[in-house]
Amino acid sequence: MKGSDAPIGVFDSGLGGLTVVRELIRQLPNESIIYFGDTARVPYGPKGEDTVIRYSQDIAAFLRTQQVKAIVVACNTATAYALPTLRAQQDIPVIGVIEPGARAAVQASRGRRIGVIGTRGTVRSRAYDKAIARLAPDATVTTAACPLFVPLIEEGWLDGEPTRIIARGYLEPFTDGKIDTLVLGCTHYPLLKTVIGETIGREVRLIDSAHETAAETARVLRENDLEAGDSNARYRFVASDDPEQFLAVGQRFLGAPLERVELVTLGS
Amino acid sequence: MKGSDAPIGVFDSGLGGLTVVRELIRQLPNESIIYFGDTARVPYGPKGEDTVIRYSQDIAAFLRTQQVKAIVVACNTATAYALPTLRAQQDIPVIGVIEPGARAAVQASRGRRIGVIGTRGTVRSRAYDKAIARLAPDATVTTAACPLFVPLIEEGWLDGEPTRIIARGYLEPFTDGKIDTLVLGCTHYPLLKTVIGETIGREVRLIDSAHETAAETARVLRENDLEAGDSNARYRFVASDDPEQFLAVGQRFLGAPLERVELVTLGS
Repeated sequence: MKGSDAPIGVFDSGLGGLTVVRELIRQLPNESIIYFGDTARVPYGPKGEDTVIRYSQDIAAFLRTQQVKAIVVACNTATAYALPTLRAQQDIPVIGVIEPGARAAVQASRGRRIGVIGTRGTVRSRAYDKAIARLAPDATVTTAACPLFVPLIEEGWLDGEPTRIIARGYLEPFTDGKIDTLVLGCTHYPLLKTVIGETIGREVRLIDSAHETAAETARVLRENDLEAGDSNARYRFVASDDPEQFLAVGQRFLGAPLERVELVTLGS
Repeated sequence: MKGSDAPIGVFDSGLGGLTVVRELIRQLPNESIIYFGDTARVPYGPKGEDTVIRYSQDIAAFLRTQQVKAIVVACNTATAYALPTLRAQQDIPVIGVIEPGARAAVQASRGRRIGVIGTRGTVRSRAYDKAIARLAPDATVTTAACPLFVPLIEEGWLDGEPTRIIARGYLEPFTDGKIDTLVLGCTHYPLLKTVIGETIGREVRLIDSAHETAAETARVLRENDLEAGDSNARYRFVASDDPEQFLAVGQRFLGAPLERVELVTLGS
């Protein structure tokens, strides 16, 4: 297949993946995108591996019915647990957020002391530890789960004392020069960049994998001759629950107005 | 049917309903219980009505395969949205947590100024407003959603500055003598009783519907000749995800050791 105006399918447990969509739109302005936010089953972070794999398969199957040419798993927990399964089952490219984030961290880190924060599921999977070790076997990786960050962000507590106190607790393992680079290993976390940066200190580089994931997507489309022509890019947003809440909060993640969100129910 | 040693089925979106189980065990020591915590799909609070009804139907169907003689919906959001549907579909008694909580509030309130806190779903449903108005048409009801309480509780922040600051924000509409009684309209909230009580002031009565719901269950079993004999009560705990996490945190809700949690997957 030479070129393709089919859309890229992007999914996340909820709204966080919209930070990846924002970068995709910026870097690949010709590409159409269909985004699926599994808001009926958010959050994925505390859930077990089998459950997250099952949910990811449901969503991939839905995206295939929409004729997508590639799938971007814009959720760290789903990437950590389900990427190998999705890649084995799909005959189109499947791109995750962890390898691009790990690569960016290794490039940014001078002292090879890298920290990773994410959901309990992402941390438990050790997916970042493994990805970083493959790229830089001499790197030291310190990880910490920050389970309250997603609900705080989804409720709009992007600043304020509770978020700062909770952030201080979560980031305690990284203080005293223990790391020089911190991976925001959850697509929600870029919205807490200010609080996280002020808590951890300016000398620590923060890695937001959205930018890297979009660059990786561009590369994969190019290598597979799947790039869109000079078409009119179209964007569709689908949620599995409550499109109103998605509309209200999603704009903050996307950094642009959202006009319409469709509702699609998967499984039960 | 005269008497029945079949179990009572109890369900919640996650762990909160265990506060109701604790009361059931205390008030009805002969009754066997099977508890289903839908931990794969927790929280229900931010989800839409159709989704919560669908989930509740799945769980009721599962409980029926376990031969339950009655179902206790130990979740305010599920009660608010799904109780009428479940009652219409089931030929066994279905007991919710809202009517008993509303009744207790009306009995406790001298000045007929009642506050209700709950999840976004429970507040949006106006189920407490309607139940209280039926019992005491002259009562003034003030409601507020506290969406971060469930994640804070499930993460063990039962005390501490973040919880106190967030509680002050949520409870602001109730200060200055606006209410004399506050319904904890979510089965998780009894674990924040201390913080809520200190924030709102001692002169406000707190209503925990677990006690009332257990008393209502006792009444319904008696009226339907469904009481268990002097049998050995058996307790089973089932979760739809990650039984380990359920075991670790569930004891706090149950107020007793938990030995074993089974895993049952519903739908997708």
